[in-house]
Amino acid sequence: MTNPLDMINKSKNIAIISHVNPDGDSLGSILGLGLALKKIHTNVTIYVNDIVPGKYEFLPGLHLLKKYDNEALDEYDLTFVLDCGDINRLGYSTTLLSRSKKVFNIDHHISNNSFGDYNIVDAHASSTCELVYDFLSKELNITVDNEIATCLYVGINTDTGSFKYDNTSPSTHIVTAHLLEAGINIEYITYNLYQNNSISNMKFLGHVLSHLALYLDDKVAIVDITDDLIEKYSIDAAETDSIINYARDIKGIEVAITLRELEEDLIKISLRAKGDFDVNKLANIFGGGGHKKASGAVIRGSIDNVRESILNEIKKSL
Amino acid sequence: MTNPLDMINKSKNIAIISHVNPDGDSLGSILGLGLALKKIHTNVTIYVNDIVPGKYEFLPGLHLLKKYDNEALDEYDLTFVLDCGDINRLGYSTTLLSRSKKVFNIDHHISNNSFGDYNIVDAHASSTCELVYDFLSKELNITVDNEIATCLYVGINTDTGSFKYDNTSPSTHIVTAHLLEAGINIEYITYNLYQNNSISNMKFLGHVLSHLALYLDDKVAIVDITDDLIEKYSIDAAETDSIINYARDIKGIEVAITLRELEEDLIKISLRAKGDFDVNKLANIFGGGGHKKASGAVIRGSIDNVRESILNEIKKSL
Repeated sequence: MTNPLDMINKSKNIAIISHVNPDGDSLGSILGLGLALKKIHTNVTIYVNDIVPGKYEFLPGLHLLKKYDNEALDEYDLTFVLDCGDINRLGYSTTLLSRSKKVFNIDHHISNNSFGDYNIVDAHASSTCELVYDFLSKELNITVDNEIATCLYVGINTDTGSFKYDNTSPSTHIVTAHLLEAGINIEYITYNLYQNNSISNMKFLGHVLSHLALYLDDKVAIVDITDDLIEKYSIDAAETDSIINYARDIKGIEVAITLRELEEDLIKISLRAKGDFDVNKLANIFGGGGHKKASGAVIRGSIDNVRESILNEIKKSL
Repeated sequence: MTNPLDMINKSKNIAIISHVNPDGDSLGSILGLGLALKKIHTNVTIYVNDIVPGKYEFLPGLHLLKKYDNEALDEYDLTFVLDCGDINRLGYSTTLLSRSKKVFNIDHHISNNSFGDYNIVDAHASSTCELVYDFLSKELNITVDNEIATCLYVGINTDTGSFKYDNTSPSTHIVTAHLLEAGINIEYITYNLYQNNSISNMKFLGHVLSHLALYLDDKVAIVDITDDLIEKYSIDAAETDSIINYARDIKGIEVAITLRELEEDLIKISLRAKGDFDVNKLANIFGGGGHKKASGAVIRGSIDNVRESILNEIKKSL
């Protein structure tokens, strides 16, 4: 690879983009890299497609994010694409790639086909943020300050389920030790990510756990998230994402599912597996995908029909 | 301090004890130290007072635990007391101390007054397990194998809320990296600690979250855990400990409380604080104690009277 620092220095302008529906690792990595590059380059733009979920509003550098404008016709010498295993997940900003002279792809998804002119792709890394840390400290020799470290920590923490998932390696903890040494405020980060739930969300969680339904010898747990329920508890549908983990974390459950009404006869299914069940294969059948242990799809049909179809498919492979 | 390895070698017999109501850090540290000492000494006994909560039944070396028998009149040359900030929390095994020639105290509680003949007391350590790791690797030069590492990891993970609490330091992550290098199975540990909840516990959680009560401008959340409720959901009262965290993790909550009926007119209160509130001070008023952010007490009275008394005290300092 050409020396990355040379490449950056030679670029007149630099863009940083990530996938749609931003999560902790996509936001943490674009902001962490963005804040770092701004220390050594005057013309760096960080783009997002979507609304940033409320719990990430505390991230340093959030004010630097620009909403991508497909009409702007901006061209870039170098575009960093972060945490994007599938180039089709870039949303509007896909067009930016065709307007970029060089693409630098940093990612940890196993599906990533190294689509960039330069690629740092490592499926063994816990997160893109872990890779960005190594890139900054080893390749660019940029000191990771408190703000950059906060961003990168958020991506590592959220993508590893707070270091509990088996994508956590010794290196993940070593990198995290360095991030803590940069003086990040763990209490503040934990508060924002995990201890700041709305009371209505908690009551909603109480409701769905009370009404949890088990199927197929109690190996499958399904949570229905209907429009009525969302309305009754006045919650933001996007904030129901973590509920599926509670269903997964029940003894004996091999597949946990949420069925959420997006609109009439359009259901978003989220899937989590425990043990050996492969929910990526299951999602593929319905035109969706993801990882072996976390996948999803969007299916036409009533909530009852969709539930029946999925249970039929699971029955075949359980 | 006398060289610890000499001290161990010169002792004919060694005991290891911890506090009553064993948690991840007490069990992890006595088992981790016990398994390690058994590599270099033939006469090591590890004691517990109480029943080990089900989720810790996967811990390596659990079969080595002996129930302490106050009548046995065993005497020891050296007794390790682990994770015990207050010598009165040893339960039955307090008598063992008077039958021990030397006491080696390893702990991370700020309340620990260094009661041992030898003391490793560090309130900045995340957990006793973190201190035991350093003791084994630096003082005793014992290789921390997979089994020992699993025990120590469980204590660190549970005492730091999976590395989310601010007792987590760079050293905590460095030690954890070494534990992972010993080949521990994160997926298996996470499954046992966090993904193996009974369905009745989940339904119970659903019930209490649906019935959560807020007080004092919604800064205080209280969960009542009555005998009737425990019976209705057929759950083990000891397994309700983590419920208080859900109450704490609601936006705006400064103090979370569970009130659990131990017997008629005897209530166990558990307290969690977020932000600056000091629940250790609050617990002290009721004859209890603990940490600034996690404390408890046992109070005589009906659940209604106890609730009122506590709210009155909180009102004074909120």
